[in-house]
Amino acid sequence: MKPYAEMSKEELANEIASLKQEYRHYQSLGLSLDMSRGKPCKEQLDLSMGLMDSLNSNSDLCCEDGTDCRNYGALTGIDEAKVLIGDMMENNPDNIIIYGNSSLNVMYDTVSRAYTHGIMGNTPWCRLDKVKFLCPVPGYDRHFKITEYFGIDMIPVPMSPTGPDMDMVERLVAEDETIKGIWCVPKYSNPQGYSYSDETVRRFARLKPAAKDFRIFWDNAYGIHHLYEDKQDYLIEILAECKRAGNPDMVYKFASTSKITFPGSGIAALATSLNNLEDIKEQLRHQTIGHDKVNQLRHVRFFKDIHGMVEHMKKHADIIRPKFEMVEQTLEDNLGGLGIGTWTKPLGGYFISFDSLPGCAKSIVSHAKKAGVVMTNAGATWPYGKDPHDSNIRIAPTYPSAADLKTAAQLFTLCVKLVSAEKLYAEMGD
Amino acid sequence: MKPYAEMSKEELANEIASLKQEYRHYQSLGLSLDMSRGKPCKEQLDLSMGLMDSLNSNSDLCCEDGTDCRNYGALTGIDEAKVLIGDMMENNPDNIIIYGNSSLNVMYDTVSRAYTHGIMGNTPWCRLDKVKFLCPVPGYDRHFKITEYFGIDMIPVPMSPTGPDMDMVERLVAEDETIKGIWCVPKYSNPQGYSYSDETVRRFARLKPAAKDFRIFWDNAYGIHHLYEDKQDYLIEILAECKRAGNPDMVYKFASTSKITFPGSGIAALATSLNNLEDIKEQLRHQTIGHDKVNQLRHVRFFKDIHGMVEHMKKHADIIRPKFEMVEQTLEDNLGGLGIGTWTKPLGGYFISFDSLPGCAKSIVSHAKKAGVVMTNAGATWPYGKDPHDSNIRIAPTYPSAADLKTAAQLFTLCVKLVSAEKLYAEMGD
Repeated sequence: MKPYAEMSKEELANEIASLKQEYRHYQSLGLSLDMSRGKPCKEQLDLSMGLMDSLNSNSDLCCEDGTDCRNYGALTGIDEAKVLIGDMMENNPDNIIIYGNSSLNVMYDTVSRAYTHGIMGNTPWCRLDKVKFLCPVPGYDRHFKITEYFGIDMIPVPMSPTGPDMDMVERLVAEDETIKGIWCVPKYSNPQGYSYSDETVRRFARLKPAAKDFRIFWDNAYGIHHLYEDKQDYLIEILAECKRAGNPDMVYKFASTSKITFPGSGIAALATSLNNLEDIKEQLRHQTIGHDKVNQLRHVRFFKDIHGMVEHMKKHADIIRPKFEMVEQTLEDNLGGLGIGTWTKPLGGYFISFDSLPGCAKSIVSHAKKAGVVMTNAGATWPYGKDPHDSNIRIAPTYPSAADLKTAAQLFTLCVKLVSAEKLYAEMGD
Repeated sequence: MKPYAEMSKEELANEIASLKQEYRHYQSLGLSLDMSRGKPCKEQLDLSMGLMDSLNSNSDLCCEDGTDCRNYGALTGIDEAKVLIGDMMENNPDNIIIYGNSSLNVMYDTVSRAYTHGIMGNTPWCRLDKVKFLCPVPGYDRHFKITEYFGIDMIPVPMSPTGPDMDMVERLVAEDETIKGIWCVPKYSNPQGYSYSDETVRRFARLKPAAKDFRIFWDNAYGIHHLYEDKQDYLIEILAECKRAGNPDMVYKFASTSKITFPGSGIAALATSLNNLEDIKEQLRHQTIGHDKVNQLRHVRFFKDIHGMVEHMKKHADIIRPKFEMVEQTLEDNLGGLGIGTWTKPLGGYFISFDSLPGCAKSIVSHAKKAGVVMTNAGATWPYGKDPHDSNIRIAPTYPSAADLKTAAQLFTLCVKLVSAEKLYAEMGD
């Protein structure tokens, strides 16, 4: 089929009529499918059921250093967990705090602490007239919601396949002291699946921020979440690079096992410089006596070491890779050559990012919903939920079954075609 | 032996010489004992090892409503856990949010939320010149540390066996709009083991605070932590009483299973009015996708219901009751009639509170430490760690073995005698 933009008005009208008929057919099916959130599917969760056996009533719940994990204490986590998560994050265990079950919670608390008490002796953000964050777009909606909730102004920075527009990042942080942070998902980014290039990471580490309390919020959520064994992205380790560049305190790095074992029952962690760690511990000791050490031990006993975790991730990949490939193939089969959308083909992570013709995303998502397929809200990938181009849509292929996903992807492409054709038709003169 | 205050100077000198000799003997033993924190002992932790078997790799990890506990979701907790914890807290499950592993963390976050965003539309505390809390004394050091960390002024309110001085509480909250909260451990209080009388609870529910965002921080940490089956304190349920009194939104109530199953690996909860819950959820949804539902399910499957939990608590009581009684007996045996100290005899909770002669507590704790017995720092039970009488010492009998506890209690009473005798001697004229 030829590109929609090259169709005559009559050809487009015929196409629309045919698409509408097909759309009504889908509506009659009473579908109820969800491609909205980056949730593992049941088969992925089943991979970690052994976690429930890694401790039992006969287990010794003491750490190697003798700490009884059942009792109070160990504010920053048990050593074994720091070693395992250190290997996962590519950081020295000494640079790590093991938290509870949610890295989102760690990020929220990190912003909240800066807001209430400031970072390393700097003015608490609540005492400043204006605080701003840079937000690579499209990005992760829950990041943007945190900064929005704290009244922090968000400045969109365009993403490219090599990462955020670093010219813009460098310029803005150097000239504006009110810019205190930037949200990054540096590897298999949410939603595009892009990984920051070596040059991008090097430039991050060499930023010259006007604000002494500027921090890079480096959410390495998908550090070992590859889809392929033979094609994998590599990322320069940011703490080490910042240290080499003379900016050791400039980054907070976050990760969790949420999409490795069980979302909600995994362990989250923060890696940062010793100076930042001391600053954080001064707050943390007022907030808690310690996080769930038994669950930390459970994870260590289950995986044994990073090799166990890597092998485990291959099983995840085997389950979700076909889903990614099927969605990509469906997009190609149904939209290829039509000139009405582009999409990413990530090597890892949880999302495919789709860009429609400008002004079509909301309508596409709305059409999908009316036929029973829930997508992430259009706009969600932008600060304040406002995509100025109304074009970006996040596709989350992992959760539905293969059959449901096939149906959902087919319907999605149908909605893209219908909305695009109607838009082009409406734009035509008489 | 007669009261120290009635001894002649010579008698006191002889007593001091004898006590010093005994003290040096203890020092020569190289003791290393800890009576400082309210931690369960190993035998108590062993009671909950079945918790590690309540889920295994063959378990169905879905809730009764079909929610897969392994995946994301259920921001306020799973229904089964709300029922169990509701029964534990004597609250409607609908009034409950199940959190992570630490009620201290819930309290911190509650203060932090009020500080950053305000309570139910009121001005965030960070925007106010002055915020004050009432602090019944002696009280729980970690409560006081939270409010101190947020720069909140703390006003001590004297405790009595029936609870805080309610005349003072009523007057202060009615006349001072900057008073935004009060820390309460209403049952088997930390450190005295007192339980608020019916009249005290009724007066709490009928407070007429000047501040619309005044909240009672009701930390019911020891709600079912009885030492005896036949002698138990009862407490009027505060949410219901506040509702009856027309003040439904005035209380945040906290609890956890930290001293029921495993400290650090239990589940914490907050119970409050539906208005407060909505207010809190508006924040909570930015902080996390949900807490650890698998651990919630683990607790439900282990206890089955509140009866299971109550039976479980009897086993705790059987382990720690003899420790409380032994310490009380040692205090009586060694200090009875000497007029140099008073102590509480609680029916539950984790502490015995000791009051020395004014000006002796720091020295007693220091003497104990120099002979190898760590006590809670003198002063810790007061805001800013400053006990104006320097008399209150918290005794935590649960953690040490019976043998160690016996030694520690003996040494403690020896230190009380030595320090008191020296003080009285020094106060005598020539």
